[in-house]
Amino acid sequence: MRDDTLLMTMLFDFFGELLTEKQREYYDLYHNEDLSLSEIAESAGISRQGVYDIITRAGKALIEMEQKTGVVNRWRETIAELTRAESMARELLELSVDDEEAAKLARELTQILEQLRNQ
Amino acid sequence: MRDDTLLMTMLFDFFGELLTEKQREYYDLYHNEDLSLSEIAESAGISRQGVYDIITRAGKALIEMEQKTGVVNRWRETIAELTRAESMARELLELSVDDEEAAKLARELTQILEQLRNQ
Repeated sequence: MRDDTLLMTMLFDFFGELLTEKQREYYDLYHNEDLSLSEIAESAGISRQGVYDIITRAGKALIEMEQKTGVVNRWRETIAELTRAESMARELLELSVDDEEAAKLARELTQILEQLRNQ
Repeated sequence: MRDDTLLMTMLFDFFGELLTEKQREYYDLYHNEDLSLSEIAESAGISRQGVYDIITRAGKALIEMEQKTGVVNRWRETIAELTRAESMARELLELSVDDEEAAKLARELTQILEQLRNQ
């Protein structure tokens, strides 16, 4: 099971450093660097099953951290609201073509929201 | 050392559930419910020193989680930018008194940003 969803990527991004070193390393090689279980097993000098178990445990640990903290869900909801806010700021920018001061503000606001959404 | 800073409150809010049950419970009673070490020790049936050690370890664990993930810092920076964005949206609202459509948008945008900042 290769679990390459956006959610797992975000979980690794937020909580990856809380995994053990081995969990983080093998999880990253498998899910982000796209190495096979056999390739990781060979370079690590352990069995394919051993690598599989460590990666599976890492995934479960990431999911459990999110279930306990809700950090990533909170972040995703924030991104959704920021996207909505950004599109409203763009509409304001369009409405303010005749008002230089308002246009400047709306442009700057749009940029701030875009940066926040993409961080 | 009672470490009642906003940062520690945020760390506990974000990562509290990742502590052990005892760490979370005693940390919360001491820092948030304002019980003394002796009161916690008495009701838990362990020594005052034992309670102190657990609370100290909890605080260190929270700080370590933040050093590893940077989640709270990322959140604080986002809040600062949201505050800046919200004040710009308010300025846009003031500038749009003569334009009903723009005023409606600016009002809604201000509310979204205020809610995001206060969540």
